[in-house]
Amino acid sequence: MAADQRGKAATLALRRRLLSNSCRLFFPEDPIKIVRGQGQYMYDEQGAEYIDCINNVAHVGHCHPLVVQAAHEQNQVLNTNSRYLHDNIVDYAQRLSETLPEKLCVFYFLNSGSEANDLALRLARQYTGHWDVVVLDHAYHGHLSSLIDISPYKFRDLDGQKEWVHVAPLPDTYRGPYREDHPNPAVAYASEVKRVVSSAQEKGRKIAAFFAESLPSVGGQIIPPAGYFPEVAGHIRRAGGVFVADEIQVGFGRVGKHFWAFQLQGEDFVPDIVTMGKSIGNGHPVACVATTQAVARAFEATGVEYFNTFGGSPVSCAVGLAVLDVLEKEQLQAHAACVGSFLMELLGQQKAKHPILGDIRGVGLFIGVDLIKDEATRMPATEEADYVVSRLKENYILLSTDGPGRNVLKFKPRCVSAWTTTTRGSKARRHPDR
Amino acid sequence: MAADQRGKAATLALRRRLLSNSCRLFFPEDPIKIVRGQGQYMYDEQGAEYIDCINNVAHVGHCHPLVVQAAHEQNQVLNTNSRYLHDNIVDYAQRLSETLPEKLCVFYFLNSGSEANDLALRLARQYTGHWDVVVLDHAYHGHLSSLIDISPYKFRDLDGQKEWVHVAPLPDTYRGPYREDHPNPAVAYASEVKRVVSSAQEKGRKIAAFFAESLPSVGGQIIPPAGYFPEVAGHIRRAGGVFVADEIQVGFGRVGKHFWAFQLQGEDFVPDIVTMGKSIGNGHPVACVATTQAVARAFEATGVEYFNTFGGSPVSCAVGLAVLDVLEKEQLQAHAACVGSFLMELLGQQKAKHPILGDIRGVGLFIGVDLIKDEATRMPATEEADYVVSRLKENYILLSTDGPGRNVLKFKPRCVSAWTTTTRGSKARRHPDR
Repeated sequence: MAADQRGKAATLALRRRLLSNSCRLFFPEDPIKIVRGQGQYMYDEQGAEYIDCINNVAHVGHCHPLVVQAAHEQNQVLNTNSRYLHDNIVDYAQRLSETLPEKLCVFYFLNSGSEANDLALRLARQYTGHWDVVVLDHAYHGHLSSLIDISPYKFRDLDGQKEWVHVAPLPDTYRGPYREDHPNPAVAYASEVKRVVSSAQEKGRKIAAFFAESLPSVGGQIIPPAGYFPEVAGHIRRAGGVFVADEIQVGFGRVGKHFWAFQLQGEDFVPDIVTMGKSIGNGHPVACVATTQAVARAFEATGVEYFNTFGGSPVSCAVGLAVLDVLEKEQLQAHAACVGSFLMELLGQQKAKHPILGDIRGVGLFIGVDLIKDEATRMPATEEADYVVSRLKENYILLSTDGPGRNVLKFKPRCVSAWTTTTRGSKARRHPDR
Repeated sequence: MAADQRGKAATLALRRRLLSNSCRLFFPEDPIKIVRGQGQYMYDEQGAEYIDCINNVAHVGHCHPLVVQAAHEQNQVLNTNSRYLHDNIVDYAQRLSETLPEKLCVFYFLNSGSEANDLALRLARQYTGHWDVVVLDHAYHGHLSSLIDISPYKFRDLDGQKEWVHVAPLPDTYRGPYREDHPNPAVAYASEVKRVVSSAQEKGRKIAAFFAESLPSVGGQIIPPAGYFPEVAGHIRRAGGVFVADEIQVGFGRVGKHFWAFQLQGEDFVPDIVTMGKSIGNGHPVACVATTQAVARAFEATGVEYFNTFGGSPVSCAVGLAVLDVLEKEQLQAHAACVGSFLMELLGQQKAKHPILGDIRGVGLFIGVDLIKDEATRMPATEEADYVVSRLKENYILLSTDGPGRNVLKFKPRCVSAWTTTTRGSKARRHPDR
């Protein structure tokens, strides 16, 4: 490998020749070549140090030594499929089960959040005998054919909406129909789901599932009002469907107060299916679906095997276990709550000074800053958000935007801990000459 | 982890409680607990050594030290997504392009063969503007919703055949309609595809793609007659569709004579899309789609991004590069040809003695032994094949069956080399007391 010798322009030229332009770069007008990562920092080929608030995958910090070591130890001994008995897969399932409500007690292991959501769809359809899906507007659930179909964020630009997909409004209390002044936005937004379900049923459609990120992220870092999910689950279950909580971006302690973001919706709320990905393996391709005995048994009753070549391998599970160990040992869930509160406080101080900061919403290290043209219309300040992101990059801070108006600054940094904060500046120049 | 302490029965009990029964074990009546792998061998918790002829994933041998080291070195430095410039992804695309016909020059990286085939389906549909797919009978292309739909091996047991899926007969010259005595089975089987296409077109359907494993494996280790693919590609392209070669099980030198199995079909034959998985990362979740500029550009023209969180990460690509290095350095393609020929010769000697061995077919280390009740009917000897596999297991040899009759002994061992053959017996007891 020529990683340290090749200049950025040469890498870019090769990339343009060999990779599809559909696979986009961050900052396409001046992309960054990253050659090293540590904790919450990434370093380019010149040694410049960036603080990374974009990447929600390396959950416990880039290249965490315990996770790297766990992968290496297992890679040296055995990496094979799950058709043989092995302790890592059962240990990992057991550890995950301890974080979840008791009912979610059957586990499937896969390679990506997309594979997890696709399996959730298959499980829901098999269990309910229904086909249709209700999703939230602007949602994104993955890059597979079946998930593009249930992702308004994607299908609006492609083939359009399938007849078996039904879109409910985002429970956005800042910009949606029911806002912060509504007496009960949870019930009001849930009744919109009920309306969507009824309208589908009137056309003879039958609902298999409601899919939602526990905190809709691509939708603009939305925090659904507490109590919304239990109300929605009631409507969906009465229609014969199941509730799928997509925790791929938001699970594993990111929200601080709870291990899972769906738990923000009420202590007693239990989804029928939970999907996990991204942060679960700190960068190693790992994903998981957890469900109930009832759903799993309906799927088993088909007699058809579910086999995933790499899913649940001893290495994937060793990595997953190491991530859980680090989360516990370094108390990263509490850390996310603490750092998140501090960041919210600082952002709040800025809001008082700058009317462009329309809304600052967040829980733990899932934070959105909604930039607006003016308070009366709350019109998205898209260009301004772009400008902020571009200026931050010049200052070696990596942040992205999201939301239908691409005006929400999206903070989803690592739930990093003390071991990494001491490294800053020691190995890198903050502002190299270039 | 308690890998060395927990007994097999305890692991099995935990597995039954926590994992779905849809995820099946090999030898379910007496599953094996595997704790270590090296080269072509796997070792159970008692130290018994098994020779592994099932697992086609650990292509260059279980835990190959150079591959393990490459993963570890990169894991320590950086593992992030492909939205930043990095040399590994372009180096890897370049190395893969050197193994392929010049026209296949655009690469997408993913985590699994299933993700690769799903993307191939999206590419084909976008490029052609058509929706329908022609597949071979008994084919299996992956575990995702979209791929169950194009896998007769799966959909026959589930929801049945979708109206956009059209099934052509397997080009099986041993048991199909055109056999070894036919003057031109390649053209005859291809004309069956033409017939299927015409019949679909008469119903107003439009063909987006023909999908086939270059050597149909689940179909029973079938070796299509040379010239079949170019003929089929002609029919498919005239219908406005593209040819997708699924090399997930059979690529990367396994067939010995060529690096890719589709090259057995004629030096000039070039598919429009090639999908890769399994062996590509020797157990690490890596997959790839290679296609032409024309197909890639049509997909780009939608303006919709394709982003795969883990696909093409510096670690995945470092592993992929290391696998290519080992294949070259240890001349494993030539080794597959040599060991495969030797095995075919030994099996041929057995065939002369045992009439149950109906057909022995193979190329490189992709070999099938078709067990039959009698030569006149060629009826599959299913129970006998089961018995052989079970007796082999008692003798510490792991083999599986495949084919619609589950009567084909399927050899798909690692393309192992000299470094591993010396370890046998040194660290393990061959027949431990138990």
